[in-house]
Amino acid sequence: MAASLVAFQGERGSFSEEAAYKLLGRRIRVLPCETFAATFESVTQGRANFCLVPIENTLAGSVYENFDLLLTNHLHIVGEVNLRIVHNLIAPPGMARREVRQVYSHPVALAQCSNFFAKNPRMERVSFYDTAGAVKMLTERPLRGAAAIASRIAAEVYHARILATHLEDHHENYTRFLLLSKTPRVSPKASKVSIVFSTRNVPGALFKCLSVFALRDIDLTKMESRPLRGRPWEYFFYLDFIGNVKEKRCQNALTHLGEVTNLLRVLGCYERAKR
Amino acid sequence: MAASLVAFQGERGSFSEEAAYKLLGRRIRVLPCETFAATFESVTQGRANFCLVPIENTLAGSVYENFDLLLTNHLHIVGEVNLRIVHNLIAPPGMARREVRQVYSHPVALAQCSNFFAKNPRMERVSFYDTAGAVKMLTERPLRGAAAIASRIAAEVYHARILATHLEDHHENYTRFLLLSKTPRVSPKASKVSIVFSTRNVPGALFKCLSVFALRDIDLTKMESRPLRGRPWEYFFYLDFIGNVKEKRCQNALTHLGEVTNLLRVLGCYERAKR
Repeated sequence: MAASLVAFQGERGSFSEEAAYKLLGRRIRVLPCETFAATFESVTQGRANFCLVPIENTLAGSVYENFDLLLTNHLHIVGEVNLRIVHNLIAPPGMARREVRQVYSHPVALAQCSNFFAKNPRMERVSFYDTAGAVKMLTERPLRGAAAIASRIAAEVYHARILATHLEDHHENYTRFLLLSKTPRVSPKASKVSIVFSTRNVPGALFKCLSVFALRDIDLTKMESRPLRGRPWEYFFYLDFIGNVKEKRCQNALTHLGEVTNLLRVLGCYERAKR
Repeated sequence: MAASLVAFQGERGSFSEEAAYKLLGRRIRVLPCETFAATFESVTQGRANFCLVPIENTLAGSVYENFDLLLTNHLHIVGEVNLRIVHNLIAPPGMARREVRQVYSHPVALAQCSNFFAKNPRMERVSFYDTAGAVKMLTERPLRGAAAIASRIAAEVYHARILATHLEDHHENYTRFLLLSKTPRVSPKASKVSIVFSTRNVPGALFKCLSVFALRDIDLTKMESRPLRGRPWEYFFYLDFIGNVKEKRCQNALTHLGEVTNLLRVLGCYERAKR
């Protein structure tokens, strides 16, 4: 059987690729895509088996674009993985750390390493469109004194060297990724459910929605809201809860929720990631 | 008495300036700031009396950076205004609509006028850092065939002409702005309260928080969550509800909420904007 083809946004060597290996092992094949929309599309159009997209980061918050794409595309969440974001200083082979004068990376990655730059004032920050893309560029066309900040997978993919690791200011920096498929699949180990709903425009609507879980002692792990386009000041709510859609308790909760919502869709039921 | 000085993000003529006039009238003085952080800072440091910042748009969603800045700065919400976003085609005096070949604006504004560009295929879209900034640039250094998309106030500020109006695809395009001050002020007409809290990490925590409002028939109008930095997978919740902090019912709800939260702060109590 051919290895699964997994799409993600960004250049080869991105944190998404690192997360894909953590979740699925090293035998997968990967398909880099330019945008999140193209990443979803590669699965809806059947070019890839799965895609893996970031949904939230513990420092920066939700990746709102991907919440919207979950609603407009009809893919199913079949897995999740939490990746600790470790930033590395990476250079083409042959360059020593003391030679580094410019550091290329995505502005968010550069901002997350501000303590490192404070301690190394001779290194100048240079904004680039992508973390792994910076490693790719520097290995293809080395610039004197130039290094990059990216994932350890980027060093591996582009045969570059890691000169320093754990450059990030906050060690509690995790990104949660969702694995999406065109066909629904609920593994026997599934322990988490993601749904999206819109409330009826009545007083206490959201409270009624949450009560269907509280009354059954079902734990919520995340709630997010996004605007309902064309209906000013109304919202879609995205909710994750602990459970399995095959449990009677969860089925009852979802039936009950259907009574107090206008729209309700189960986005997936999947094995919960370790912290 | 000197007129109030109101800070906002962006160039003179921005939608924030239009919103400031709608809320406070035309007698105010205005202070354009480069970033949202600098806009908040102008008030905390006493250079401006107020700032007006966008907090959510009915198509694009919340302005998450400003939710975070509400928490880190200690300003008070003293008013709000909803502005319908109307995009105008604006050019320096003397240019006719049929001469327009390039249209400069912020990428979000260009994207919100896609039907207009479909109907006018001879007009090329050119991305620019700011809507009003594009009008400013074209009036200072006119380019043959170049116009901009911006607010009607931008045309007025830079003495340019509106060649076409209502270019936006969706008419249900509103932005809600908050007026912030260094000193708290609760007007007698105040009818809305904004708060931020973090839940205790116990099952049903969020449900318990919402119950303090539902039990007292207090309507919620908006809820937003943002990550709690340094505490992975925990969140701050921002909530708006209808009421006045001087009402006994609201005071009881807030006292009750204090029992089930770790952190609780009232961000302001102010007159609710018309839709």
